[in-house]
Amino acid sequence: MPESSNENSTGPVNRAALNQAVGEIVVATPGPGMSDISRQIAGWLNEQSAVDGLVTLFIRHTSASLTIQENADPDVQSDLVDALSRLAPEHGPYRHGMEGPDDMPAHIKSALTSTSLNVPVLDGAMALGTWQGIYVIEHRARPHQRRVALHFLGTVL
Amino acid sequence: MPESSNENSTGPVNRAALNQAVGEIVVATPGPGMSDISRQIAGWLNEQSAVDGLVTLFIRHTSASLTIQENADPDVQSDLVDALSRLAPEHGPYRHGMEGPDDMPAHIKSALTSTSLNVPVLDGAMALGTWQGIYVIEHRARPHQRRVALHFLGTVL
Amino acid sequence: MPESSNENSTGPVNRAALNQAVGEIVVATPGPGMSDISRQIAGWLNEQSAVDGLVTLFIRHTSASLTIQENADPDVQSDLVDALSRLAPEHGPYRHGMEGPDDMPAHIKSALTSTSLNVPVLDGAMALGTWQGIYVIEHRARPHQRRVALHFLGTVL
Repeated sequence: MPESSNENSTGPVNRAALNQAVGEIVVATPGPGMSDISRQIAGWLNEQSAVDGLVTLFIRHTSASLTIQENADPDVQSDLVDALSRLAPEHGPYRHGMEGPDDMPAHIKSALTSTSLNVPVLDGAMALGTWQGIYVIEHRARPHQRRVALHFLGTVL
Repeated sequence: MPESSNENSTGPVNRAALNQAVGEIVVATPGPGMSDISRQIAGWLNEQSAVDGLVTLFIRHTSASLTIQENADPDVQSDLVDALSRLAPEHGPYRHGMEGPDDMPAHIKSALTSTSLNVPVLDGAMALGTWQGIYVIEHRARPHQRRVALHFLGTVL
Repeated sequence: MPESSNENSTGPVNRAALNQAVGEIVVATPGPGMSDISRQIAGWLNEQSAVDGLVTLFIRHTSASLTIQENADPDVQSDLVDALSRLAPEHGPYRHGMEGPDDMPAHIKSALTSTSLNVPVLDGAMALGTWQGIYVIEHRARPHQRRVALHFLGTVL
C-alpha cells in the first residue's frame, strides 16, 4: 500500500459561473511522427478566456491519434514512433490493405494510443507536468490535415 | 514544426444553460470482436435533447473495452482484434489463470485500449470524423452483457 | 449486430446546480507496479460533497500512467506489469538512454495506457464495475512521488 496524501485539495472553484466553449484546430502533419500542439491548445484556451476547468481534445481520425509525452528530448518521440511500428509492423498478416500498407498499422497504433484526452486547466493554464507536451501522432506515410475538436468546461474571465 | 491554424474556433456556445445527464446502455456482445454502439449513443443523446457539449462513455468492465475506429471496412475490425491477440496472446506466461486462458489477455487488451472516451457534441450530433465509429471490444471468448455508463454535459433543447 | 437496450437511461439529473471542483493527490509509488488509488479518489469526492457528475483524473507525468483494472486477484496486476515490459522491453533499440534503461520503456508504457481517465459519479459514488479499481502504474525502477490532478463536474450537496 503506497503512502499518499491529499496535498492540494481545493474545493469548488466557482459555484455560479460555469461555461463551455467548443472549437477545432487543424494540424498539418509532415508525415509519420509527432507534432506538439500544446501551444495551439493554450492559445485557444486563452481566446476563450478560460480560467479554471477541463479541456478535452478529440481527434476526428482513426489513422492519427493523440498522446501526452515528454517534450524535453526529441529522441523520446522518435523512439516512441519506432516502438509503435514494432508493435504494429507494416507487413503484418492484415486483411485490410486497399488503402496501402501503412493504413492498417495506423489504425492499430491509433487504438493503442488515444482518440480523446483531458487536461485540467488552472488559473488559465493547463495543469501539465513540467515535461509534458500534447502531441498529434501521424501514423500514415504521407502528410495530412488532422482535425482536433476542442471542448472547454469551466470558469471564464 | 507543423503548419497549423484555428479554423473553427467558436467561442462559448451558451453562457447560461449547462445541464448534465447520466445514463447507461447495455451491449450484448456475441463473443470476441467489436460491436458498433455509435447509434445507441446517438439515440441516448437525442433522448436527452442534447445540443452542444461533451459526451463521456465509461465501460464498467476490465475484460471488454472501448475504442473509436474506422467503420467503413469491416476487415479493419478483424485485423485490430487479431493484432490485440498477437500483443496479448492466450498462452502467455501468466500467473492469473483461474478464470480461463482468455481472461488475462482480456485484461491486457483492455489496458491497451480505453475504459473511458469523450466525444464532443455539436448541434445535437457527435463530432465524429467521417469514418469514425464507437465500439465495444469484447475480449472474452463467450458472449457477455456489457454495461457502458454515459454522461452528457452541455446545452439541451 | 449485437442486441442492446437502454436500461438505466435517466434524464438530466439536475438542471440548475452544476459545480466543479479541482484538486490533486500525491501517490508515493514503491517502484514498478500498480498502486490502487480508488479510495483516495472516493475520499476526495466525499470532501467535495459530490453527488452526480463526472470525475476526471490526469497524471502529471510521462513515465507513470493511469489504468482501470481488476482489483480482485493481485496476480492480474503482476501479469499486466509483466505484459507491458514485454511490449516495451528495457533493452530495446532506443536512442533515448541518458535517464537510464528504464526511462524510454516507461514512456512507451505510458503511451500504451492512460494519462487521463473519466469515471461517472452517481449518488456520491463512482460508477465503477464490481471488480474495477483505479491504479497508478509506476513504470520507473525507483519509487516516485506521482501527482494526479482531479476535476469534478456535477451536482454537490
